[in-house]
Amino acid sequence: MSLIALGTIALDHVKTPSGMREDMLGGSVAHFSMSARLFTKVHLVAVVGHDFPQKYLQQLRQKGVDLTSVEIGKDKTFRWRGEYKQGDLNTAVTLETVLGVLMNYEPQIADHQKNFPNVFLANFDPDVQMKLLSLMKKPRLIGLDSMNLWIEHKKPSLLKLMTKVDLFVANDAEARSLTGEHNLIKAAKALRRLGSKLIVIKKGEHGVLFYSDRFMFSFPAYPVEHVVDPTGAGDTFAGGFMGYLSKVNRLDEKALKQAALYATTMASFNVEGFGMEKTEKLTLAQVDGRMRRFIKFMSF
Amino acid sequence: MSLIALGTIALDHVKTPSGMREDMLGGSVAHFSMSARLFTKVHLVAVVGHDFPQKYLQQLRQKGVDLTSVEIGKDKTFRWRGEYKQGDLNTAVTLETVLGVLMNYEPQIADHQKNFPNVFLANFDPDVQMKLLSLMKKPRLIGLDSMNLWIEHKKPSLLKLMTKVDLFVANDAEARSLTGEHNLIKAAKALRRLGSKLIVIKKGEHGVLFYSDRFMFSFPAYPVEHVVDPTGAGDTFAGGFMGYLSKVNRLDEKALKQAALYATTMASFNVEGFGMEKTEKLTLAQVDGRMRRFIKFMSF
Repeated sequence: MSLIALGTIALDHVKTPSGMREDMLGGSVAHFSMSARLFTKVHLVAVVGHDFPQKYLQQLRQKGVDLTSVEIGKDKTFRWRGEYKQGDLNTAVTLETVLGVLMNYEPQIADHQKNFPNVFLANFDPDVQMKLLSLMKKPRLIGLDSMNLWIEHKKPSLLKLMTKVDLFVANDAEARSLTGEHNLIKAAKALRRLGSKLIVIKKGEHGVLFYSDRFMFSFPAYPVEHVVDPTGAGDTFAGGFMGYLSKVNRLDEKALKQAALYATTMASFNVEGFGMEKTEKLTLAQVDGRMRRFIKFMSF
Repeated sequence: MSLIALGTIALDHVKTPSGMREDMLGGSVAHFSMSARLFTKVHLVAVVGHDFPQKYLQQLRQKGVDLTSVEIGKDKTFRWRGEYKQGDLNTAVTLETVLGVLMNYEPQIADHQKNFPNVFLANFDPDVQMKLLSLMKKPRLIGLDSMNLWIEHKKPSLLKLMTKVDLFVANDAEARSLTGEHNLIKAAKALRRLGSKLIVIKKGEHGVLFYSDRFMFSFPAYPVEHVVDPTGAGDTFAGGFMGYLSKVNRLDEKALKQAALYATTMASFNVEGFGMEKTEKLTLAQVDGRMRRFIKFMSF
């Protein structure tokens, strides 16, 4: 089933203990799509600048991602420059952000896209996320991701949006800061009370915690020994989760667990290379192969 | 199969966001025994002071723990006073330590105990741990736990001891500081190179990572919503792990996974009460019940 996804497309400059890369394809919805496209047809909603390399649009198209609603703005492409230090690869230090075309962006989509059943709002200004949501006619499954920036500066908008979505994805730090609860089970329950029925807390190298009224579960992460670049791991995780759910069109316990396994496996590939080096080359067969090893790793 | 365990017995004063308790039975080998006794016969090797309450010795005896080699010293009992702050229940702030009888303690055991097949060296001065080990005639399985204090102040002794044991248990911070590796898979491999064949890294609320040459695995923690007092969780974990392995007398993958599940389950009970409030009342049937829920929580 078709999946429409809004978020940022960026040009990333990243420095990690493994090296440095400039002008990489990045952004929340680019990473999300590169992951979700393995499971379902992804329709991207985003804006890039007039300076955006054609090769990146071509790359997404070749992977089957529909770019009908990718707008080319008059300003420059959104740029992010960040660094990860040895010993704390979980925390990105943002060195520079150039918003460019993100300022004053208003998402627009083709009429036929308004009927798509699955919607994902990848990390972006919650007011922009809300605008896309208002265009959708009868979404069956709406997923939402956010970040600390919006929790701090646009909390009322984010809280309003959270009452309108089915699936809320947050990392542990975001879950704690949104709810004021340090214990992640308490934080998950508090997030549930904020509106979404399905709560996914990403714990980075420690895996994932899922909470709903009917059941909860947890998996560790796939053991990655050499983390090259964690940028986009959370978006790649969300792409696996939402991509799989859109494909199977079910929300029972088995489907949600399978979605969490795919999400964790996809994220493990993402961190093994800069940007999308690893994820852009992946086939579903390769993902299934690692997932079988992952299941062995944590089965008893 | 009999298990002999050396470590500290303490009187603990603990303050947590849930309240305060004074003069509780504590110490590494007390928590260890209260957990391991559910699986096998535990023979305790420790020293207490002349001021040590008889009721605590009685309590351990009633739980089936053999106190033949618990010495009553001339000094006072070891005391630990610590606090856990709201929002960081993983980190104990030590307010006071009175070593008392721990100074100049030299473990002595009965002759028949020297033939026991299973040995656990719960957290203690590595030179004292080595002394007990030198008394054992033909141990089949030797487990070792330590702490940052010894990594900082007695690293040569600890490293020497690590070449002589089969199973090394560490929390994530200890594993990192001993090896200099932040990535826990790398840290586990580095610990393996230090001598022990079986490496267990306890990740607190994030569960456990096991590493050996033949296989590795990871489980999340049992989801505890209300942590009352984490003191002794690591020792309780080790008690479940080593207790189960001593019981089944096997070291294959299935036995080690089962040991890790019991260890994690036992630790989850420990943190739900002050000191041993919860673990002292436990039956194996109750542990098995929670373990079944735990398995459901993380199975797919």
